[in-house]
Amino acid sequence: MWQVLIPSPRASTDAGGKMRRSLIVTSTVDAPRQSTSPARALVCRGCGAEFPLAAQHACYECFGPLEVAYDPAALAAVTREQIEAGPQNIWRYAALLPTGQDPATRVTLDPGLTPLVSAAALAAEVGLRAPLWVKDDSANPTHSFKDRVVSVALTAARELGFTRFACASTGNLANSVAAHAARAGVPSIVFIPGDLEQGKVITTAVYGGELVAIDGSYDDVNRLCGELVETDEFEDTAFVNVNVRPFYAEGSKTLGYEVAEQLGWRIPAQVVVPMASGELLTKIDKAFSELVEIGLVEAPEGGWTVFGAQSAGCNPIATALHNGTDQIIPVKPTGIAKSLNIGDPAAGSYAIEAVTRTGGWMDYADDDEIRDAIQLLARTTGVFAETAGGVTVAVLKKLVASGKLDPDKETVVYNTGEGLKTLDAVAGQVGPTHRIKPSLRGARDAGLLG
Amino acid sequence: MWQVLIPSPRASTDAGGKMRRSLIVTSTVDAPRQSTSPARALVCRGCGAEFPLAAQHACYECFGPLEVAYDPAALAAVTREQIEAGPQNIWRYAALLPTGQDPATRVTLDPGLTPLVSAAALAAEVGLRAPLWVKDDSANPTHSFKDRVVSVALTAARELGFTRFACASTGNLANSVAAHAARAGVPSIVFIPGDLEQGKVITTAVYGGELVAIDGSYDDVNRLCGELVETDEFEDTAFVNVNVRPFYAEGSKTLGYEVAEQLGWRIPAQVVVPMASGELLTKIDKAFSELVEIGLVEAPEGGWTVFGAQSAGCNPIATALHNGTDQIIPVKPTGIAKSLNIGDPAAGSYAIEAVTRTGGWMDYADDDEIRDAIQLLARTTGVFAETAGGVTVAVLKKLVASGKLDPDKETVVYNTGEGLKTLDAVAGQVGPTHRIKPSLRGARDAGLLG
Ligand SMILES: Cc1ncc(COP(=O)(O)O)c(C=O)c1O
Ligand SMILES: Cc1ncc(COP(=O)(O)O)c(C=O)c1O
Ligand SMILES: [Zn+2]
Ligand SMILES: [Zn+2]
Repeated sequence: MWQVLIPSPRASTDAGGKMRRSLIVTSTVDAPRQSTSPARALVCRGCGAEFPLAAQHACYECFGPLEVAYDPAALAAVTREQIEAGPQNIWRYAALLPTGQDPATRVTLDPGLTPLVSAAALAAEVGLRAPLWVKDDSANPTHSFKDRVVSVALTAARELGFTRFACASTGNLANSVAAHAARAGVPSIVFIPGDLEQGKVITTAVYGGELVAIDGSYDDVNRLCGELVETDEFEDTAFVNVNVRPFYAEGSKTLGYEVAEQLGWRIPAQVVVPMASGELLTKIDKAFSELVEIGLVEAPEGGWTVFGAQSAGCNPIATALHNGTDQIIPVKPTGIAKSLNIGDPAAGSYAIEAVTRTGGWMDYADDDEIRDAIQLLARTTGVFAETAGGVTVAVLKKLVASGKLDPDKETVVYNTGEGLKTLDAVAGQVGPTHRIKPSLRGARDAGLLG
Repeated sequence: MWQVLIPSPRASTDAGGKMRRSLIVTSTVDAPRQSTSPARALVCRGCGAEFPLAAQHACYECFGPLEVAYDPAALAAVTREQIEAGPQNIWRYAALLPTGQDPATRVTLDPGLTPLVSAAALAAEVGLRAPLWVKDDSANPTHSFKDRVVSVALTAARELGFTRFACASTGNLANSVAAHAARAGVPSIVFIPGDLEQGKVITTAVYGGELVAIDGSYDDVNRLCGELVETDEFEDTAFVNVNVRPFYAEGSKTLGYEVAEQLGWRIPAQVVVPMASGELLTKIDKAFSELVEIGLVEAPEGGWTVFGAQSAGCNPIATALHNGTDQIIPVKPTGIAKSLNIGDPAAGSYAIEAVTRTGGWMDYADDDEIRDAIQLLARTTGVFAETAGGVTVAVLKKLVASGKLDPDKETVVYNTGEGLKTLDAVAGQVGPTHRIKPSLRGARDAGLLG
């Protein structure tokens, strides 16, 4: 007999009279472990207060952000064999996630197990001597890493009884939420800044849900969603990155698990990660820590080092680190890396903590550097990244040049999005190298025949 | 001891004095079977003449197209277990392909094992009562099924000693060849019609190879490539769909194998396939036939039925079938389904043969129907298809309506490309449903708060 937590919808009413749905039902069963959630509670990242696994994202004591905490015994029972026998997507790690253990409950496009691409030519060009890998998450169903977080968030949301799916998005999240909702047959309403790239607007709108363009920045969008979620009209609506954010954030851990598994259960010495809210970076670090704690992987000699990448047009986290503080001063974002344009990053100080603790650094790249890095990555690896990937590769290059990143240590750089969504970024720089008439003479005139 | 064919580069000289590279070295070894090619020869689809496995695509006797033929004993030795133990991509079927048995020789982005999506809501909307599946090949590395054919063609090309990769393309092939070449570090030169979608031009150009835009149609591009391949300057150049076309075409078989494996080693009663040259359709049918012949799968009761889809702007194959002939009259293509715009389809008569033999039919959809079908598919399944996928879903709908396709039989519809590459197709039809100021008042004014 084993004390476990079975996620199941249950409504409760908190002090304020507002409906709160709780995931927690404590019972004593001997069902197979993989069909139950290892999650134990939501814990405040600020003060450590604990709350039930419900649709709550801020601490009632200190307003700090909440994070999922796990039953250490449940995690420790997970084996490599169990994972390797799982499906070819993020759900192979279900025993390390707060939800989705039962395949029938999943709201998902089955993202994950994206390619880890060996990048020797890129390593040579940026001056790395040790192996370099590109984790290419543009291979996900809607072509960004957001499918991971959305699958976890919406699976929790449906279990919690929500009947409409929503988000505040810089673009990729909108795309993913709308597609997940269409697949699941659930209504969706997504909120985006009014100036997003066409490639992100259309691939969200095409799924037929509601799409609200807001006359303002992402931070305005996010603020409004924080207000809407408190209204009666949105009571049945799960905002993946607002009221179910703790579940959402856990989805990013799979980008750590996968890299370790794909390297043959090893953690790379160095990783370079793009940052918007900073959440992804902290969760990759958390994933590595968990793998070591539960004994699935040994820490690399000297530990791992985490590096963060922003754009020059939106660099509040990197700037704080450079200034030796973890107090983030919000900025008004500019520049082409729109998916990373969060001026007031919720997890910024935690990203700084992870980078500082592991001996890493952060840097940022301007629009020209981003464009060049998109081309550099494409030319050397065959991976066509969106601007966020350009940011990360440009920062990798800078970190090597500045000596912050050790060129003799194995490195993984994360490409989290797809070039097709931000075509305008490179449209002015690349195109046909020749235009000819359809004849041998045309080919000869263009110099194609020597 | 076992008589096998080991692919390996060898140069020979034919009557015309032109270098011909041959894949054939016959030797007697007892190496593990999966490391050797089951291919036996190139056979003329017209007169049956046989040729060695070399860079040759037309019969020296009758000018008919050549196809790879296999050693029946080698194919018959393949087991489900062997396939299931293979990698999570097309190379799990290496024992049924002409090349790539040795992982070290592959020129590949590892495409394949794309999702087979259950599509109950779509079935209901088009009037199907039996299970409907969408084989979503937009999930490939460069987001079309062309990665399959390119991986097989370029692996053969490198074995044959070619040092530059090329193609004539309606867009997706260009993208795939350029990306494969970048990954492999091999120069590429791809030829496209001058009026392609931006989404296809840029995602080809970004890889840094040569990209030649030709003032003409795809058929003009193809004709020119047929001339270039005979020049000395292009002697070292493999045009995936010209001089190594027989290898290229075999890659499409994996879209048949995968569907059968994903259905639990069953062949669906009905498939609907988009057609440009018509090659893909014939190879899905060939794959099903092979699986039955070698005993890996039982034929469904009553056999399988193959349906072909074209656009109204380019329907020479469907028109010939409708006119009761297999003589294709070339057309000048128009319309938004540019990736299918081949007016003079090389495998058209073979597609008609397969459709007729299996009791199927062909139909075509106009631009409005294509646009509507893209939205229908997105809304009901979460899959965002390019125009080619719109063609196929629109034709599925027509085939049900006209009674040509049996609504009570299990059906697979192939989506072969990604919506992000043809955004303009739906850009005029979808977009934000609301535009608001960033405030609760803005939300209320827009009717979002009841
Ligand atoms: C492509 C891409 N990469 C990275 C990020 C950063 O994610 P986070 O907000 O977790 O830092 C985002 C966020 O929207 C994104 O769209
Ligand atoms: C997306 C897509 N689907 C289908 C096809 C048809 O292929 P085939 O020429 O083998 O008929 C093509 C050809 O370019 C394509 O790009
Ligand atoms: Zn707290
Ligand atoms: Zn012949």
